Amino acid sequence: MSEINILGEAYKNAKYKATGHGPRNVQVLKDALMEIDEELESEMYGKGKVIDDFQEKMAKYLGKESSVFFPSGTMAQQIALRIWCDQKGIKKVAYHPLSHLEIHEEDGLKKLHHIQTILLADKERVIELEDVMGLDEEISCLLIELPQREIGGQLPDYKTLEDISAYCKQKGIKLHLDGARLFEILQYYQKSAAEICSLFDSVYVSFYKGIGGIAGAILAGDKTFTVESKIWKRRHGGDLISLYPYILSADYYFEQRVGKMSQYYQEAKEFARCFNQCHGVSTKPLEPVSNMFHVHFEAPKEEMEVILAAIYEETGIGLTSYVREVTQTTSYYEVSIGDLYSQIPKEDLRKVFLLLDEKMKTIKIL
Amino acid sequence: MSEINILGEAYKNAKYKATGHGPRNVQVLKDALMEIDEELESEMYGKGKVIDDFQEKMAKYLGKESSVFFPSGTMAQQIALRIWCDQKGIKKVAYHPLSHLEIHEEDGLKKLHHIQTILLADKERVIELEDVMGLDEEISCLLIELPQREIGGQLPDYKTLEDISAYCKQKGIKLHLDGARLFEILQYYQKSAAEICSLFDSVYVSFYKGIGGIAGAILAGDKTFTVESKIWKRRHGGDLISLYPYILSADYYFEQRVGKMSQYYQEAKEFARCFNQCHGVSTKPLEPVSNMFHVHFEAPKEEMEVILAAIYEETGIGLTSYVREVTQTTSYYEVSIGDLYSQIPKEDLRKVFLLLDEKMKTIKIL
Repeated sequence: MSEINILGEAYKNAKYKATGHGPRNVQVLKDALMEIDEELESEMYGKGKVIDDFQEKMAKYLGKESSVFFPSGTMAQQIALRIWCDQKGIKKVAYHPLSHLEIHEEDGLKKLHHIQTILLADKERVIELEDVMGLDEEISCLLIELPQREIGGQLPDYKTLEDISAYCKQKGIKLHLDGARLFEILQYYQKSAAEICSLFDSVYVSFYKGIGGIAGAILAGDKTFTVESKIWKRRHGGDLISLYPYILSADYYFEQRVGKMSQYYQEAKEFARCFNQCHGVSTKPLEPVSNMFHVHFEAPKEEMEVILAAIYEETGIGLTSYVREVTQTTSYYEVSIGDLYSQIPKEDLRKVFLLLDEKMKTIKIL
Repeated sequence: MSEINILGEAYKNAKYKATGHGPRNVQVLKDALMEIDEELESEMYGKGKVIDDFQEKMAKYLGKESSVFFPSGTMAQQIALRIWCDQKGIKKVAYHPLSHLEIHEEDGLKKLHHIQTILLADKERVIELEDVMGLDEEISCLLIELPQREIGGQLPDYKTLEDISAYCKQKGIKLHLDGARLFEILQYYQKSAAEICSLFDSVYVSFYKGIGGIAGAILAGDKTFTVESKIWKRRHGGDLISLYPYILSADYYFEQRVGKMSQYYQEAKEFARCFNQCHGVSTKPLEPVSNMFHVHFEAPKEEMEVILAAIYEETGIGLTSYVREVTQTTSYYEVSIGDLYSQIPKEDLRKVFLLLDEKMKTIKIL
């Protein structure tokens, strides 16, 4: 534990940070509320101007008939899959082995909705058309996460998406988009959100990843689907009397940052190139397709913590507050480029990579 | 619909309002955040100072080993019942026919948790010891709501609570408190929250009823129970990255108002007496036991809307924005006394009741 603290402390003390938009503190909420008229009334249990306006705006942005604001993506996505399963009468869905639903939700989908899951593709790559065509059981819904976060944020070809969409339509399989980071990939595909969403029957997007809001999600689809999702939202305990603190901040940071996603993407590519020039360091994917990627070190977690902490102290630049073990001799961390990256003086950043390269060369294990 | 608007509009335009703490608008959140240090860090998925401190504070206040902050009571209570059912291996619970879980949650308990419910007592009265003793099926948990909101906020004798608690303990039935309005009844029972909660295995309290926060709930019990409730909170999609907007406002308004509950209670009794002196008007309960009660009119909803709107216009005092139909010739609305009641000039309030009494006498149907 003490090593964790070394890195965490060094990161905290660093003058510049290479990842994210800044601390997740109360200022984030205060900024979002600053210009809001204090007499603006709360919505009441999902009804009212604040929530209606935002739902309408996001439905339009995503090119869907209707949308519903949820406190979390966990809730929104379980509900989407439940609706599609109930509609078809088959409680079976397919998704990637590292889907958020499979590894981060304490099996809510199985424990609350009794939905069976089929894991497609292997852990190291995205789902391809062949995986879907190779399914030998009938499913109600296929969930595709764009980008696939747990493998560094990877994407299939757009053609693959189109083919999967056409195949699912033909086979009567509903296609759901886990778009937690949808805003972040538009630049790579050179498509609008609505164009991508048109390939899917239902779509979830998040407002606290690249957008940097407080919490909250939107689930979009046709009207019949969203009306049913509101009933499930109440069943889950997500139909709060007031969700406006999340809605107002989602809207505020959406306006602030949705136009900056291509900047973050360009910066992520530049940043990844620097890592890939260092001895014993590589990124996944090699060239990012969004604002995110993973940095893999050919060195054990404990050793990397010491190396990185020393670099932060020397340069004043913090890269990450943690490193995770992959094997006994390798480790990684996740990068999400946000507002902070562009504040780092280029010269200081160069020094970071000179030091990193140098220190990695001294590691015996390599 | 036009009659609803008449009353709603008249209420909106009234200078004084007899119920609640004021509009549920963004000012409520801004006030709560005013004194909060903007550098205070958000908790992260249920962990961190903001949430830890409040959970500890509420556990202590409720006299329980541990407590967990939830976005909603709907989520917290379903989870409590699920845990008790799983522990005993019997998916059956009992509660009042007008329990929130039975009538306001789209059957989440049944649809998500597959828990069967047994309805105790009839719709017009609270659960008594005999109802519990008369159960002819084995249950895992009995839920008692204090006060029973849908019948005007009624309470059993304290002795009854103690007897039910002892009986449940003896029979191996877990006792859960729906304490959405627990703060509001301490004065009537002349007990501390911890004393009342000691009769129950698990307890839920809300922060947007008498306390007047934005949203949010606490679920309290022993440590094993709350640890398990956190796993279910994640499954439900309630383990948000940041719940602090609700936590900070819950804490702020708890401090502001928990000490004013006895004032609200006294005012409710005074207010109810005035109604009961009017022709064709009575309150349920006749003498309130908390800050809430129901006002019943021996007149149809539509007629009452016209009468009340006229009174608001003449006196500048709004009583309610709605009236609900009971039968074709009777109607009612709910009173919750908060900060606004004491702002009404007594003389103007007297005029309200003179007018109400007068107008009720003219109704032909009586």
